[in-house]
Amino acid sequence: MATHALPKYLTGDKAAINEFIDKFDVFLFDCDGVLWSGDHVFEGVVDTLELLRSRGKQTIFVTNNSTKSRSDYLKKLTAMGIPSNVDEIFASAYSSAIYISKIMNLPGPKNKVFVLGEAGIETELRECGVPFIGGTDPAYRRDITPADYTAMADGSMLDDDVAIVLAGLDFHINYLKLAVAYQYLRRGAKFLATNTDSTLPSNHTFFPGAGSISIPLVNMTGQQPIALGKPSQAMMDSIEGKFQFDRSKACMVGDRLNTDIKFGIEGRLGGTLAVLTGVSKKEEWEVEGAETVPAYYVDKLSDIKV
Amino acid sequence: MATHALPKYLTGDKAAINEFIDKFDVFLFDCDGVLWSGDHVFEGVVDTLELLRSRGKQTIFVTNNSTKSRSDYLKKLTAMGIPSNVDEIFASAYSSAIYISKIMNLPGPKNKVFVLGEAGIETELRECGVPFIGGTDPAYRRDITPADYTAMADGSMLDDDVAIVLAGLDFHINYLKLAVAYQYLRRGAKFLATNTDSTLPSNHTFFPGAGSISIPLVNMTGQQPIALGKPSQAMMDSIEGKFQFDRSKACMVGDRLNTDIKFGIEGRLGGTLAVLTGVSKKEEWEVEGAETVPAYYVDKLSDIKV
Repeated sequence: MATHALPKYLTGDKAAINEFIDKFDVFLFDCDGVLWSGDHVFEGVVDTLELLRSRGKQTIFVTNNSTKSRSDYLKKLTAMGIPSNVDEIFASAYSSAIYISKIMNLPGPKNKVFVLGEAGIETELRECGVPFIGGTDPAYRRDITPADYTAMADGSMLDDDVAIVLAGLDFHINYLKLAVAYQYLRRGAKFLATNTDSTLPSNHTFFPGAGSISIPLVNMTGQQPIALGKPSQAMMDSIEGKFQFDRSKACMVGDRLNTDIKFGIEGRLGGTLAVLTGVSKKEEWEVEGAETVPAYYVDKLSDIKV
Repeated sequence: MATHALPKYLTGDKAAINEFIDKFDVFLFDCDGVLWSGDHVFEGVVDTLELLRSRGKQTIFVTNNSTKSRSDYLKKLTAMGIPSNVDEIFASAYSSAIYISKIMNLPGPKNKVFVLGEAGIETELRECGVPFIGGTDPAYRRDITPADYTAMADGSMLDDDVAIVLAGLDFHINYLKLAVAYQYLRRGAKFLATNTDSTLPSNHTFFPGAGSISIPLVNMTGQQPIALGKPSQAMMDSIEGKFQFDRSKACMVGDRLNTDIKFGIEGRLGGTLAVLTGVSKKEEWEVEGAETVPAYYVDKLSDIKV
């Protein structure tokens, strides 16, 4: 048995659940593995969300998915039967746009972003008033040509106003985009990533994640990006920048110890709640020397009921 | 001043040069930075090569360039005015084909290679009788579709005979190819890379190298590939497998301490010769605690004259 403090188990303990709910004003939810798995919504999660809202709690959905804008993600929640609104959604594309516009806040005109990623990133940058190039522009969705080498080397195809390279999941990644992004980094652009997950779970297997887009640039430059997804605290700073909540009155809810729960603990939130419907198992925090231990756990999110 | 043994400086010392030449039967040459820089051939290098050949020495050109087959590379040497023949050329695509066919030598039919790379790799695999898919096949030069996710997850678009993933420099890299390569690695395919150079020097700047193609797979799987380029000793094993030379009578000539000279030292060759016409400077081996120190050095290759 572990000698460290273990999380409090809430399932079936109504008094403890009420005390848990009363302790917090804000609940941050990871989505996949907590609310649903793939296309299957877990039974009762809508009731739990409604219970929290009926008691005046703020609910926020936090996702590392960088291909979707908040309104895209709202459509997904709606399709899943989960009532929500765009202001409750915090995805890594939005997190990046907030970080760039509110925290970095570079003066123009040298404040353009070169984007490796899909339309969701572009939507969020546009809404935050951040100028950008790259992204889904067909001019970059092509093979590299001999003329490109020359035009990159002499700088004629590079925009002097680019000050940031932002790498997210790009289903249209190619050699040209990587080469251009690298040239901007060589010229001193700041290196940001929406998130650095190496893989993307889908169809019960894994595909290349956003980290697969940024890692060649890490390898070429020897630089690590500032990541705007869990568990990076730059994302927590972005969330706090938007919602202005009291961290001691906030609780992070998630299924993965090394991203969700770590994110909450390192963000010094008042609490963390692990659910057992996703990746991590309780054996992981029960072992001697477990690094990341949640404050609470339930078998499933819908166990939060009174 | 360094307390370790320093390389012997040969420039201008005819007696030492003669002794140096007599000591070896085989000279392995790195090309860029030794014979030429970009499109500019260094004066006198052809005379040096002819001198060595006239004394019965075997000359071998060793390059990490994976996009060219040996016959492609011969064209490049010829265009540069350097007399050579295809048997003197050892490029990482060829090195990979030799390693797969002669050293791994997997029994068919489960011996196919999924290639990330260009035509040079395909040519060499074909000449060594190695079956392969991927590479320049237009079927993989396209965007990923929803049907691909399903067909990768259920295995229907994967070839059960693929036993090796070989990653080289691929100017047509895309998300689909990375996803397919990853699926093969998950299913237990061996992971090989022609070379793992993160960058490719060109036009006086740098572009993504072969290592930029393999690194997302490293990051996703946590596995390192067996690399068939300098300084990996798998390449030296391939060279020895072909030329059957006595390592103690071979000398590696190069401009980069951390690839060329390291390659020769770790391969326990009889000697290493550094030239100062490329990347490394003599200050690098003169510092206290220098890790990689050549046995000899000259200002430029053409200083090897009698």
